[in-house]
Amino acid sequence: MTESMEPLYLEDLQIGQRFISGSYVMEAARIKEFAAEFDPQPFHLDESAAQASLFKGLAASGWHTASVAMRLLVTSGLRIANGIVGFGGEIAWPRPTRPGDILHLESEIVESTPSRSKPQQGIVTVRSTMLNQDGEAVYMLTAKLLVFRRPL
Amino acid sequence: MTESMEPLYLEDLQIGQRFISGSYVMEAARIKEFAAEFDPQPFHLDESAAQASLFKGLAASGWHTASVAMRLLVTSGLRIANGIVGFGGEIAWPRPTRPGDILHLESEIVESTPSRSKPQQGIVTVRSTMLNQDGEAVYMLTAKLLVFRRPL
Repeated sequence: MTESMEPLYLEDLQIGQRFISGSYVMEAARIKEFAAEFDPQPFHLDESAAQASLFKGLAASGWHTASVAMRLLVTSGLRIANGIVGFGGEIAWPRPTRPGDILHLESEIVESTPSRSKPQQGIVTVRSTMLNQDGEAVYMLTAKLLVFRRPL
Repeated sequence: MTESMEPLYLEDLQIGQRFISGSYVMEAARIKEFAAEFDPQPFHLDESAAQASLFKGLAASGWHTASVAMRLLVTSGLRIANGIVGFGGEIAWPRPTRPGDILHLESEIVESTPSRSKPQQGIVTVRSTMLNQDGEAVYMLTAKLLVFRRPL
């Protein structure tokens, strides 16, 4: 595991390098507020309706979970010099996030490709898994990030 | 294009069927608030810092854009009887979302696979593209959704 205190450049990121974030507690009130704004479905908004749904209890919107993962990555997961800027990637929610869940993110560099046309930059693929307090994976993101070389 | 007023079941969704959402205006204040909570990076928080960044102007967090896309899908894009519940998918942000952008979502059914083990359900793959007021794609999501058959 790397303590990522100094901003990192392309040449600092090696395949297999791992980064562990701090933790974040999912609050029921915030789950409902987020859902009211961005994902207004009964199983994200109301405990009784959620109990009767396929989730069998209140569950955070997957986009809320994804946004919390970004917060963890930006604030304590991985410090890239030019910021964390992604082109896209693959996303999965193997199980729901619940009120009271204590979440953290474990990230690993899985690929690093220098740009052919732009010698000062490259694409780094980072695979992140969000785990709850029971060590269960609730979210996975494999993202392609734009990363610059250290300026000369 | 299908007017999706009635809740849809697995047998209602055909490959090639398209759904067009209503529109959503990205506000600068909400871009900054969302970023302060979930993606606190200078180019999402402050116009001057953003001007000096690779975005050359304030840009919404990609997760804010993704969350707005979910709102459009849920409220006006696609009405699935059991709700829109995704296992995961592929995501891309080909260009940034800016303050004042008027966004809408165009979605298409690209695959539908009945479950082998659970006859009452299937997985439907939906490809959604978010376009701005100039018709430029700012976000794409290809998502695998859990969809149930109409109850007998």
